[in-house]
Amino acid sequence: MKKFVNDPANFVPEFMAGVLAANPDLLEGNLEFQMIKRKDGPRADKVSVVQGSGSGHEPAHVMAVGPGMLDGACQGPVFAAPPVDACYETIKALATPAGVLVLVNNYQGDRMAWDTAVEIAQAEDIVVDQFIINDDVAVQDSLYTVGRRGVAGNFFVMKCCGAAAEEGQSLAQVKAVAEKVNANVRTMGLALTSCIPPAKGTPIFEIGDDEMEVGVGIHGEPGRERAKIKPADEITEMLFAAVADDLPFTSGDRVALMVNGLGGTPPAELYVLYNKAAALCEARGLTVARNYVGEYCTAIEMAGCSITLLKLDDEIEKYLAAPAQTACRIF
Amino acid sequence: MKKFVNDPANFVPEFMAGVLAANPDLLEGNLEFQMIKRKDGPRADKVSVVQGSGSGHEPAHVMAVGPGMLDGACQGPVFAAPPVDACYETIKALATPAGVLVLVNNYQGDRMAWDTAVEIAQAEDIVVDQFIINDDVAVQDSLYTVGRRGVAGNFFVMKCCGAAAEEGQSLAQVKAVAEKVNANVRTMGLALTSCIPPAKGTPIFEIGDDEMEVGVGIHGEPGRERAKIKPADEITEMLFAAVADDLPFTSGDRVALMVNGLGGTPPAELYVLYNKAAALCEARGLTVARNYVGEYCTAIEMAGCSITLLKLDDEIEKYLAAPAQTACRIF
Repeated sequence: MKKFVNDPANFVPEFMAGVLAANPDLLEGNLEFQMIKRKDGPRADKVSVVQGSGSGHEPAHVMAVGPGMLDGACQGPVFAAPPVDACYETIKALATPAGVLVLVNNYQGDRMAWDTAVEIAQAEDIVVDQFIINDDVAVQDSLYTVGRRGVAGNFFVMKCCGAAAEEGQSLAQVKAVAEKVNANVRTMGLALTSCIPPAKGTPIFEIGDDEMEVGVGIHGEPGRERAKIKPADEITEMLFAAVADDLPFTSGDRVALMVNGLGGTPPAELYVLYNKAAALCEARGLTVARNYVGEYCTAIEMAGCSITLLKLDDEIEKYLAAPAQTACRIF
Repeated sequence: MKKFVNDPANFVPEFMAGVLAANPDLLEGNLEFQMIKRKDGPRADKVSVVQGSGSGHEPAHVMAVGPGMLDGACQGPVFAAPPVDACYETIKALATPAGVLVLVNNYQGDRMAWDTAVEIAQAEDIVVDQFIINDDVAVQDSLYTVGRRGVAGNFFVMKCCGAAAEEGQSLAQVKAVAEKVNANVRTMGLALTSCIPPAKGTPIFEIGDDEMEVGVGIHGEPGRERAKIKPADEITEMLFAAVADDLPFTSGDRVALMVNGLGGTPPAELYVLYNKAAALCEARGLTVARNYVGEYCTAIEMAGCSITLLKLDDEIEKYLAAPAQTACRIF
């Protein structure tokens, strides 16, 4: 296995220790529960926004913790839900009188863990609610999912809820922001290669040298079809049409356009895709008011991409423009 | 070839068009010469800092253009120097009475192109000087290099020169900053896999499933040795010792520590390496005042990393902390 790893069983806490070591002023954590939180929270008058899911999707989830984004997050092993106690401890660590909103990507394992943790916390009079994110248009049900999967659109839900909570909105209001963003965001992904979870040591699926998986999930779940590789522009057209037709996005809409890398695709290729996607927006009469090109929700080192469109209004644009700070930084 | 690409011959201008489309307020370009510049420059009273080299190292070089970083950059084909006319046009587009400083990573192709372009520009009374970056401790000479190669330490030279130029320092002063940073920065890299330039369509070198190339160059040039893969901590120790012993860095030094991904290595693995590298700094008595974990200088989708140490003083720390804005952003 060609990876930078020590004992694969310690991979997740070791990487999280690295995130903490690199951000001592911003973050603190409890690695027993694979949990990271803002160092300056929780605040009694502010809703805490939290998330937790399998590892291997970095920067989601613990690298999205910080002012204006998540207040805390916990991670399970690579591609596996966090245990109930980690979810519970995360809720407890971020509990405030204003309440905790848990953003759950729609996978059965995550939902079961968070459902139970929320129930335990509520029994202890912790104010907590949850919201399910399901932006992936590729398939209706999937390997680990009843209903649509939650994928890169998750970023926009976190960003907007983080900004709304920072403004001092109530738990019900922040949940309404999550509902609004989720209702207006659509994503579809595509894989050129598989990826290797450290503890497994082998690829999670087989794919031919000339093949691509259209509508792939972020754990390598099958999508709509296995097809022959096409030129970048045709791939972009295919993903864009699936996403844009779903809401549907229509002429006159203002949108945020995201081209997300699944891990193994270099930035230059993502910009080739973005160049075409921006042109397709223009052709459809969509105004790209904000854009996002890079890695937001990955599948370890999978070569692949996803395209996300979010329909904007003044409120959502305000949340997207609000300041935020996480472990992800260049300077 | 498993890549998002249309005609490989158009790969570089297409990705650069994507960078421009995603940053219309920040950047403008002349894709005939594969050149991108700050939209708000040049300014008569400010030194312009420019760079240009082969593509495939993104975010270096054109994605490092913006206030507080490079004023402009041009790129050649993947892993090939930009042509002389592109270098000349870049100098000309950024020419100011205060002068242009060209930062050249030490590769023969780049040096020849920039030497000639600088000579032509000087003959036209453009004020321009150049500085050679050579931070790679792996080998003395290399496939495309007489002397040490310029690799990820390049980021620190760009950042500090960008900040010094923004402060209004003279051409001689900004060049002195480049000299100081380059004299105090050391890097060594390691590859687990090769990579595939789009126009070539095949890997640039062969490497066994259980092998790693220690001291690899960012074009896949051989390093110090081909060895069996080791656990992440041992790899970090090996790279760290090579880098730290070279200056040498000694107890009491304040440093910036960078763990750079070569393209195909996911962030979680980079943080596993960072976690160990930070501990090694502490063990050696080095204070990590600033850290950088991510992709700064890549080799397309190569799985691999490099470790960079920069010895700090108050002046360099001030430059590193100064604001900067480029195409690389999360929010």
